[in-house]
Amino acid sequence: MKEFNICSVNTEVLKEIQHKIDFKTKPVGALGQLEDTARQIAAIQNTLEPQLQKPHVLVFAADHGIANEGVSKYPQEVTYQMVLNFLSGGAAINVFCQQHGIALKVIDAGVKGQFEAHPQLLDQKIAEGTESFLASPAMTLEQCVQAISQGAKVVTEVHQTGCNVIGFGEMGIGNTTPAAALMHVITKIDLEVCVGKGTGLDNEGIQKKLHILQEALEHHADHLEDVDTTYEAGAAHFLWVLSTFGGFEIAQMVGAFLQAAEHKMVVMVDGFIASSALLVAQALHPQVLEYCVFCHQSDEQGHAKMLEFMKATPLLNLQMRLGEGTGCAVAYPLLQSAVQFVSQMASFESAGVSQS
Amino acid sequence: MKEFNICSVNTEVLKEIQHKIDFKTKPVGALGQLEDTARQIAAIQNTLEPQLQKPHVLVFAADHGIANEGVSKYPQEVTYQMVLNFLSGGAAINVFCQQHGIALKVIDAGVKGQFEAHPQLLDQKIAEGTESFLASPAMTLEQCVQAISQGAKVVTEVHQTGCNVIGFGEMGIGNTTPAAALMHVITKIDLEVCVGKGTGLDNEGIQKKLHILQEALEHHADHLEDVDTTYEAGAAHFLWVLSTFGGFEIAQMVGAFLQAAEHKMVVMVDGFIASSALLVAQALHPQVLEYCVFCHQSDEQGHAKMLEFMKATPLLNLQMRLGEGTGCAVAYPLLQSAVQFVSQMASFESAGVSQS
Repeated sequence: MKEFNICSVNTEVLKEIQHKIDFKTKPVGALGQLEDTARQIAAIQNTLEPQLQKPHVLVFAADHGIANEGVSKYPQEVTYQMVLNFLSGGAAINVFCQQHGIALKVIDAGVKGQFEAHPQLLDQKIAEGTESFLASPAMTLEQCVQAISQGAKVVTEVHQTGCNVIGFGEMGIGNTTPAAALMHVITKIDLEVCVGKGTGLDNEGIQKKLHILQEALEHHADHLEDVDTTYEAGAAHFLWVLSTFGGFEIAQMVGAFLQAAEHKMVVMVDGFIASSALLVAQALHPQVLEYCVFCHQSDEQGHAKMLEFMKATPLLNLQMRLGEGTGCAVAYPLLQSAVQFVSQMASFESAGVSQS
Repeated sequence: MKEFNICSVNTEVLKEIQHKIDFKTKPVGALGQLEDTARQIAAIQNTLEPQLQKPHVLVFAADHGIANEGVSKYPQEVTYQMVLNFLSGGAAINVFCQQHGIALKVIDAGVKGQFEAHPQLLDQKIAEGTESFLASPAMTLEQCVQAISQGAKVVTEVHQTGCNVIGFGEMGIGNTTPAAALMHVITKIDLEVCVGKGTGLDNEGIQKKLHILQEALEHHADHLEDVDTTYEAGAAHFLWVLSTFGGFEIAQMVGAFLQAAEHKMVVMVDGFIASSALLVAQALHPQVLEYCVFCHQSDEQGHAKMLEFMKATPLLNLQMRLGEGTGCAVAYPLLQSAVQFVSQMASFESAGVSQS
């Protein structure tokens, strides 16, 4: 597998940026999480003049074998149809990216069906959907490793255009099911807490999804009991977990998160599915979290617990549960506010304002 | 006192806009509070094509006699100095308004000292600061009525330029103290809950502020016990409350809120002080709340309870406690997102996406 070289952010800059922030014309701490975000971005960029350049959202799309077990309210072809909708500009993520000047790219990580060429579409298809993980791994280890590499590659390409802030979204009918499995296996939080309504299941649908997941976990139980799932156990176990329960868009996002951190980019974290990929990424390289700005707490029930597991405080909690990177896009102006107050506000001295 | 003619918003449009929203290419309800906000703006504007035009933030500034009792960490001249900072573009509210294309106006509602003319400054000074309400009313009833009229007048002027979305901020050293008094008298919530750290008091400072407020409330107790403080008791009591404990910027914001609702504008509600003005406004005219989008829950401890009293769910909770209208300005992109997804997203039919 591709090696990632992720350094910790520069914490020495934190003191200096704190000093700069505290002399702005406002009570100490009065900008709350905007100050936290400014400090984090300064540390990531190792500068007292943090800046955001060429923001991007990448939407990874793929299909899931497990969708055939009836775990979603929507038919599987919606994945393909929504990719077309992204390309014609009609989805929520298009609207919000357009609003904030965020460049949007769509990655076919493993959608069923073929697309015509389109300037916003990148063909990184691993296969036309995963296998159902009810009876076999969702993908082979080779496919998993390839997906991580592909996810990393596209981030490097975007980084080379001068982008230093990036968010990852996804589209894949059925993908709250693999995300719930990954969450349960990695965090060991009760499966019932990890399983939610997805795009809108009723209680009966949630129970069915839960039973399918229980069956799948039993099927793969030997591997899960055999191993030490602490961080120290190394990459092999988490790669097995990802290949067994993951999806191609999730695996590509794992590579994308790691590569973005290696490039010292500011990484915007979306909702439940993107965070399930981040759970895997941080199991492989804990430092990845230092680069992550958590944008939005999803209304999908497991997400709050996922965030807690990663000790994350999201910027927004708007009860959204859409994916596509919409949480990143609507939070992006807050990241901009954070860097702009640092660069543009007067200090007490420059403005001639008395201090307390 | 000026009469306000505030109608309820059009609730019939709610069903139609809901239908339109539910046929957008996303799971039903998946945009959470953005959907709530879109519905509210549609109802305010009585249209299925809501739009935001020429957004404004008005910052009302004034001084407070009670500041002489040592209720703030900052000296009183900071009010004057910060007005100059607003006019030279160096405050947080300047940065965030600039970021989002929001026009900013500063209103001298009663600052100590005289300002030179400036295109962004409006002279609506009632007097050079209020009296300390420890031993007398903060202002006369005539001043209070005049302040409400002035606050209303500037909103009408802004409305006439084509603005249909407006937020109110404030600057006034010491003004969490009158705001806490208004909150306690109107909501009857325990004074201890209403009193917070303001710009950064320590526990000793908070205790001192609490004792000063207890003393003031005792001094004015006869009036408070005499009357029925339910809505039905009419305007006279609430005008007395506002004149006794309020400030000139708070009283002008009361008029501003009411006038904006009369003009059927979308009203962005900022933090603790602005909400204390809204408490008075809604006591006079409950329908004003239908026009209010609550932008940010302040870190000032009483604000959460104020919001609860008004049954309000804020869009943001970033632990900010700065005032100036900063909560409105940083939330404004979310209001934009709400109207833009309604106008720009494809429907299932137009995008050829299968429904559940």
